[in-house]
Amino acid sequence: MQVFFDAEIKKMKIKNCYFPLFVSPGVLQKEKDHIEGFTPEVAWVTKSGDSDLDVHIAIRPTSETVMYPYYSKWIRGHRDLPLRLNQWCNVVRWEFSNPTPFIRSREFLWQEGHTAFATQQEADKEVLEILELYRRIYEEFLAVPVIKGKKSEMEKFAGGLYTTSVEAFIPNVGRGVQGATSHCLGQNFAKMFEINYENEKGEKAMVWQNSWAYSTRTIGVMVMVHGDDKGLVLPPKVASLQVIVIPVPYKDVDMQAIYQACSSTVTALEEEGFRVEADIRDNYSPGWKYSHWEMKGVPLRIEIGPKDLANKQVRVVRRDNGAKKDISMEGLVDGVKNLLSEIQESMLNAAIQKRDACIEKVTTWDEFVIALNKKKLILAPWCDEEDVEKDVKARTKGETGAAKTLCTPFDQPELPEGTLCFASGKPAKKWTYWGRSY
Amino acid sequence: MQVFFDAEIKKMKIKNCYFPLFVSPGVLQKEKDHIEGFTPEVAWVTKSGDSDLDVHIAIRPTSETVMYPYYSKWIRGHRDLPLRLNQWCNVVRWEFSNPTPFIRSREFLWQEGHTAFATQQEADKEVLEILELYRRIYEEFLAVPVIKGKKSEMEKFAGGLYTTSVEAFIPNVGRGVQGATSHCLGQNFAKMFEINYENEKGEKAMVWQNSWAYSTRTIGVMVMVHGDDKGLVLPPKVASLQVIVIPVPYKDVDMQAIYQACSSTVTALEEEGFRVEADIRDNYSPGWKYSHWEMKGVPLRIEIGPKDLANKQVRVVRRDNGAKKDISMEGLVDGVKNLLSEIQESMLNAAIQKRDACIEKVTTWDEFVIALNKKKLILAPWCDEEDVEKDVKARTKGETGAAKTLCTPFDQPELPEGTLCFASGKPAKKWTYWGRSY
Repeated sequence: MQVFFDAEIKKMKIKNCYFPLFVSPGVLQKEKDHIEGFTPEVAWVTKSGDSDLDVHIAIRPTSETVMYPYYSKWIRGHRDLPLRLNQWCNVVRWEFSNPTPFIRSREFLWQEGHTAFATQQEADKEVLEILELYRRIYEEFLAVPVIKGKKSEMEKFAGGLYTTSVEAFIPNVGRGVQGATSHCLGQNFAKMFEINYENEKGEKAMVWQNSWAYSTRTIGVMVMVHGDDKGLVLPPKVASLQVIVIPVPYKDVDMQAIYQACSSTVTALEEEGFRVEADIRDNYSPGWKYSHWEMKGVPLRIEIGPKDLANKQVRVVRRDNGAKKDISMEGLVDGVKNLLSEIQESMLNAAIQKRDACIEKVTTWDEFVIALNKKKLILAPWCDEEDVEKDVKARTKGETGAAKTLCTPFDQPELPEGTLCFASGKPAKKWTYWGRSY
Repeated sequence: MQVFFDAEIKKMKIKNCYFPLFVSPGVLQKEKDHIEGFTPEVAWVTKSGDSDLDVHIAIRPTSETVMYPYYSKWIRGHRDLPLRLNQWCNVVRWEFSNPTPFIRSREFLWQEGHTAFATQQEADKEVLEILELYRRIYEEFLAVPVIKGKKSEMEKFAGGLYTTSVEAFIPNVGRGVQGATSHCLGQNFAKMFEINYENEKGEKAMVWQNSWAYSTRTIGVMVMVHGDDKGLVLPPKVASLQVIVIPVPYKDVDMQAIYQACSSTVTALEEEGFRVEADIRDNYSPGWKYSHWEMKGVPLRIEIGPKDLANKQVRVVRRDNGAKKDISMEGLVDGVKNLLSEIQESMLNAAIQKRDACIEKVTTWDEFVIALNKKKLILAPWCDEEDVEKDVKARTKGETGAAKTLCTPFDQPELPEGTLCFASGKPAKKWTYWGRSY
């Protein structure tokens, strides 16, 4: 995913950079709305060794305030635009409520892109180009279907103009999860950080900015969407190990020959670029190893026993659906290649089916409440007013958590004239996804 | 460099991983010598938002103590060995004395490898394999000559068994700089963190461990070795921009045609994989641009003016030695390719010559002091006693900093029987490099 995304943004002339982990209180607090959104989660370094620091230093929760003072210095004329930088780094948000590994954790890894343009039009265009890359990461790599859309005013990035996102859904728990976000920051940060330039007419103008990020949360979403009672189920494209080869010993058979076949199977697949290993540990039974590697989510298991050896074949077992099949040693490479791509495809299709079965279109409050209790991903006509979203949140506050907007999908169903908001009864402006979320 | 190193360690079956930025006081303080070495530099998070934390959390200065509790859990039998992991991450050491960008800074980026083996023999072998990769990074990528050797007991890694390093030298200031280190940790951490396994005979045994790292300090060394009064001088292999194309306008000439030639030059080189840009800003003169890109260290400048256009050629100017040359448009790609590889080679050769001119072999204290005052890299016969190194440090403590051992080179000159230590007069055991250092 990292290699894919990094190559794609380089094609867009976005360059990689690195800014510090630490941010001084002065710049951190420069943008009011922004810092209101992040202050409670900021971790502070106050001591080094046994000495107290004179000035406490914050750890970046995100890097707008770290980077933009430099944007202000670097951008002078219109020829300095666009300025398009990205960094791969860690950030810290000291979460207290419901920390969940990979989904909401105190430290996480991400890329954060920060770009500045002369016009809003260019900024708008990039927001959607990046969002499309995020969709591809989820659907093409993680086999997780996502919905592209715009966040509500309440849910947008603190200090930004508007936020777009890809939204995933976890059917088992009935919760939405924000997959990745691409923000247009407008000119708000430009104003606070004085990021100005001289335009072609020699006039002073303010830049338009974007920021966008996807994080290790992608891993959490993948785990929850595909995992089953046996453990992880990993899509072949992102599995660090795609194939595990397990020797199956029997009494009175030539184990050397079986080990030899395992080893040559690994070599043959490795040469073709597959990520493959053999588990030749002698202190575990084959059955124990099957469970072990199933738990770890390896997409394909190859078993080699004396019968397979005699028949010049191997037994392959799919992790996603348990299907078994014999393939000839001769057809090994092609067989594995086809199976891995079948698994990738059918994992996405299965996930789409499950997700789609959770989508429920409602038009009234009563339907909404029923759907919410059934843990659905709810599409409802909405008046798009912040107070109404607050009201829905308050009215649905319960043990399982309040409902909120997930996104207003770009792909809008028809909204017949006269349709009313499910919550306020006012004229509806759009169809919006609602649900509980991570 | 990152792509090179990552591919090489993967060939060695070392896997990438990621461990947290934060470390609890309990594990951090488990290894006595280790923590003595790092405690004064540890940054502590004591607050989140406005709340004080019950338990203060350290930011990793290095990750032995973060990772090894897991090694203890993961390693059970001899089939679990070797365990070989690497992570690319940031670490924090709160330095107060002489912070120098890229050389000694509070946060830096590095890779840190952490491996565990059944035998010391395997560990010893890996230490040198990794050290050779570090040598290649410096010499093949950064065009910086380094000396491979072993650190003294005083200078070795806190808590480890022995440390090997590649040592560079900055002629202008007469200081050595530790380029990267590959440590054999022995069984000391294994004892503290209880990293045991059952060997083939069914007996409990302790693992042998290594750790090794190279950091963004490489950038600082490169800057200091190659930089000149005009600014950076970057070796082509690591320059983010290898070629800058600058249009040279004259009065009454067809600027469109010149811009067109610049643009097609960029395209032609880009297609061949070169990192190239044109600077077509209209608010700066060519002369200003020459200085600007010289300061940034771009290895090759291409100038295109009306005369060049007429002669179907471009003017190329080398950053490292200022040499100018015309090459035909037709021979552009080959010409640039050859020039960049010439620059890479001659930068290394020039650096070797300068470094070698600084090496001085001494055998007495008086010679040593004279050489030190001449800012030399001093090779001296030594008795290899810790007290003697302490004594040398104390006796040379002055305005420019005390001398210490840099390394005992693996490549040892002959040591005639009866040679005495330059400092103690005791029998010398080896030739060792001494000098002031960063």
